[in-house]
Amino acid sequence: MEPFSTPFFEENFKQYIKKNNDVFTKLEAMNSYYRSVVSSMIYDNLNKNSEIVRRIRNLDTAYKTVKAENTEE
Amino acid sequence: MEPFSTPFFEENFKQYIKKNNDVFTKLEAMNSYYRSVVSSMIYDNLNKNSEIVRRIRNLDTAYKTVKAENTEE
Repeated sequence: MEPFSTPFFEENFKQYIKKNNDVFTKLEAMNSYYRSVVSSMIYDNLNKNSEIVRRIRNLDTAYKTVKAENTEE
Repeated sequence: MEPFSTPFFEENFKQYIKKNNDVFTKLEAMNSYYRSVVSSMIYDNLNKNSEIVRRIRNLDTAYKTVKAENTEE
């Protein structure tokens, strides 16, 4: 799976939700993961700003997809 | 206060925390606000990618400052 793609982030969201389901609700886990990923990407000086924005858009698309799913697996 | 500056986001974080303190903990409110602001900024085609990244960095700096504060006012 291509890193920083939408499917990549979808998978990571699901893993993070699952790993933290004893302390976080699904939405809490998603918002926490989202913030930590954005925070690390914006200080990555190896990448162009256009690439950073592209990755965040993929993350955001994955967020919307996973949020809309009924299951938390 | 300059829009999208770090002090601007600090103020907005605090207001959002306060407004939602009956339903969200401080951290939940912060992560929720962070996600919603990033999500809206990345689809703003009026701005250059460099400006989008600059704004998200300001948001992230404000996040760290407000998170580290003891009070929630």
